[in-house]
Amino acid sequence: MGLVVQKYGGSSVADAEGIKRVAKRIVEAKKNGNQVVVVVSAMGDTTDELIELAEQVSPMPAGREFDMLLTAGERISMALLAMAIKNLGHEAQSFTGSQAGVITDSVHNKARIIDVTPGRIRTALDEGNIAIVAGFQGVSQDSKDITTLGRGGSDTTAVALAAALDAEVCEIYTDVDGVFTADPRVVKKARKIDWISFEDMLELAASGSKVLLHRCVEYARRYNIPIHVRSSFSGLQGTWVSNEPQGDQNVEQAIISGVAHDTSEAKVTVVGVPDKPGEAASIFRAIADAEINIDMVVQNVSAAATGLTDISFTLPKTEGRKAIDALEKAKSVIGFESLRYDDQIGKISLVGAGMKTNPGVTAAFFEALSDAQVNIELISTSEIRISVVTRADDVPEAVRAVHTAFGLDSDSDEAVVYGGTGR
Amino acid sequence: MGLVVQKYGGSSVADAEGIKRVAKRIVEAKKNGNQVVVVVSAMGDTTDELIELAEQVSPMPAGREFDMLLTAGERISMALLAMAIKNLGHEAQSFTGSQAGVITDSVHNKARIIDVTPGRIRTALDEGNIAIVAGFQGVSQDSKDITTLGRGGSDTTAVALAAALDAEVCEIYTDVDGVFTADPRVVKKARKIDWISFEDMLELAASGSKVLLHRCVEYARRYNIPIHVRSSFSGLQGTWVSNEPQGDQNVEQAIISGVAHDTSEAKVTVVGVPDKPGEAASIFRAIADAEINIDMVVQNVSAAATGLTDISFTLPKTEGRKAIDALEKAKSVIGFESLRYDDQIGKISLVGAGMKTNPGVTAAFFEALSDAQVNIELISTSEIRISVVTRADDVPEAVRAVHTAFGLDSDSDEAVVYGGTGR
Repeated sequence: MGLVVQKYGGSSVADAEGIKRVAKRIVEAKKNGNQVVVVVSAMGDTTDELIELAEQVSPMPAGREFDMLLTAGERISMALLAMAIKNLGHEAQSFTGSQAGVITDSVHNKARIIDVTPGRIRTALDEGNIAIVAGFQGVSQDSKDITTLGRGGSDTTAVALAAALDAEVCEIYTDVDGVFTADPRVVKKARKIDWISFEDMLELAASGSKVLLHRCVEYARRYNIPIHVRSSFSGLQGTWVSNEPQGDQNVEQAIISGVAHDTSEAKVTVVGVPDKPGEAASIFRAIADAEINIDMVVQNVSAAATGLTDISFTLPKTEGRKAIDALEKAKSVIGFESLRYDDQIGKISLVGAGMKTNPGVTAAFFEALSDAQVNIELISTSEIRISVVTRADDVPEAVRAVHTAFGLDSDSDEAVVYGGTGR
Repeated sequence: MGLVVQKYGGSSVADAEGIKRVAKRIVEAKKNGNQVVVVVSAMGDTTDELIELAEQVSPMPAGREFDMLLTAGERISMALLAMAIKNLGHEAQSFTGSQAGVITDSVHNKARIIDVTPGRIRTALDEGNIAIVAGFQGVSQDSKDITTLGRGGSDTTAVALAAALDAEVCEIYTDVDGVFTADPRVVKKARKIDWISFEDMLELAASGSKVLLHRCVEYARRYNIPIHVRSSFSGLQGTWVSNEPQGDQNVEQAIISGVAHDTSEAKVTVVGVPDKPGEAASIFRAIADAEINIDMVVQNVSAAATGLTDISFTLPKTEGRKAIDALEKAKSVIGFESLRYDDQIGKISLVGAGMKTNPGVTAAFFEALSDAQVNIELISTSEIRISVVTRADDVPEAVRAVHTAFGLDSDSDEAVVYGGTGR
């Protein structure tokens, strides 16, 4: 008998009907002879409604109390889901993050899981129960306070539990059919990927793909837990994310896994930086001290006449204000001329382990962008990814152009050229 | 420095405005030099909404999951309240029933508190925090599952915490000004009682007064915790419930504390019971085995000709179906002729420790009912209470007549005759 961890997002349990539909799917897995652990998010807009309430009573809600508040959401959905399952004649018990043994650090609102001790879950399973666990939440090791894991935290809960329970698979149920070669809202011909490696999935997640969060994939890779991303509505096979493709999965290694894009970043340019050692360091020290994570960094070639150079970097738009403030404060120490802030940028990334051994990929990527008349502002690469920054307005057209050029379109004959068929 | 436990009901924290108003009141108590522990119920209709959701997914929600669901309500209100207090510049921490050390038995939906170990609350107070505790909930000693205390459970949480923390007073904030000599919706001239003994309050609660529940008063009496029932809206002095009136409270011992009424009961009459030893016992054994609590019991004088008698008893309407089923099932064993069920009854009770030493009270009570043309169907008395059952339609008029007759009306000159001034 196998052990399966299933995770259902808020859109899958948005109302009583959704909860009953999910309950049937869970019971199905149980009937197929599995031990089943279910991780569930808060119903639909519950979390947003709770956040709104918090804002009504306090402009700056304290972390500890904010976490206490938000965790009410999963408490509701998990209890209802357990009831719905019992109503189908199967035994189910719900557990809070704390009861399920999800131990975290003490950083409220974005705690990290440091251990999972699922003793009560194991007992519940051994007694024949389906175990329902609140996603997104845990309990801090030091203070025993309730914590939340931040955005997408329920996926991480599911993978962490799957690892601790040595599950066969962690199924992430969502409102799309799986991971696609590009965002289907932008690229109509985007194809569902049947299998993708942890590495490629990590790069896609880091490049703007929203289906799985980076942290969740990282966790799954570390403990080698296969993830199956699939729709809670259609019940079709979705996308497997793992080290190696499994038996019935398409084993053809494609060069390119997909094209991701991201319009949530902004670009900061520090103008007129003296071109001498230590200048870049002092800029990024100021940013790091403000606890801001940056993405791409580019330093222009210095203009010989002035001895000054420009340094550009990208960061989440939400951190823009903080970054500008931090740099302005350090202006006299760093000694730059001025700052430019641009939030009308977009990033397009091509991801695929195959590009390591296919030197033509980079050239083909730039040709595709050039043919689509898209101007490139910044470039950044890793072994298995190329990213460029363009105008935000150019992003949809650029993504479609690249998707087509690399034969990723679902009915394109060129698919063979750069591999990637049947994914 | 004193320690005060305050309890706020759902109507006091129904929305963000209510929560902010309550937060100000709490901070006021803290500023007055007290250590403050606050017990809070779920916001307004939250509990009803959660129950409705449960009914949508399952016609018979399981106890364990139902409790898990309902406790989300207080989690929301307590976190918001703590945020609102912090927003006023004071430190506050919220605690679930489990975190506050409220240990209960394992009877879901109506658990009983068996111990309170408020170590974390004590620590929070010692560190200068205001402690906010979820009412209505605890954790079972055996299974460590979340439990709820049933209707009015937040009051019991407050009194139990007050006892465990040796508080000076347990303030119960509600949407009325205190305990009245009768329900002000029925008797316009009802008077707020300044002080009432635990004993009289227990009888009033048992007789239909809704302001405080019997269980809560019983707990307070056992641990000798003075209760102050007052309005969260007006801030006026309310009603003190204690062993002895305190310094500035009116110490005049009134004969009558108040008139309570109850239209939530029904009457079952077992017709044609053989008048021999053991018959009544077998009837009430059948009722007890069905876990039904009954209230009044009356056996008619046997008709000599037939050797048969009738036995009537009252019980909550909600238990009526169950009682009839239990009796029908035992009919052949008990050997009665038929059953009559009547849910159009009402109960009027006169409560006051003074009636022990004032023989005229019973007579005056019946005279008042007679003058008001109210027919009496059943009578039951204790040392400090007389209750009668009448037609439900007669209840309002009967309550007003008795209230006036005993000089309880707020501007009545007869108040002096039977005592009770200034309460």
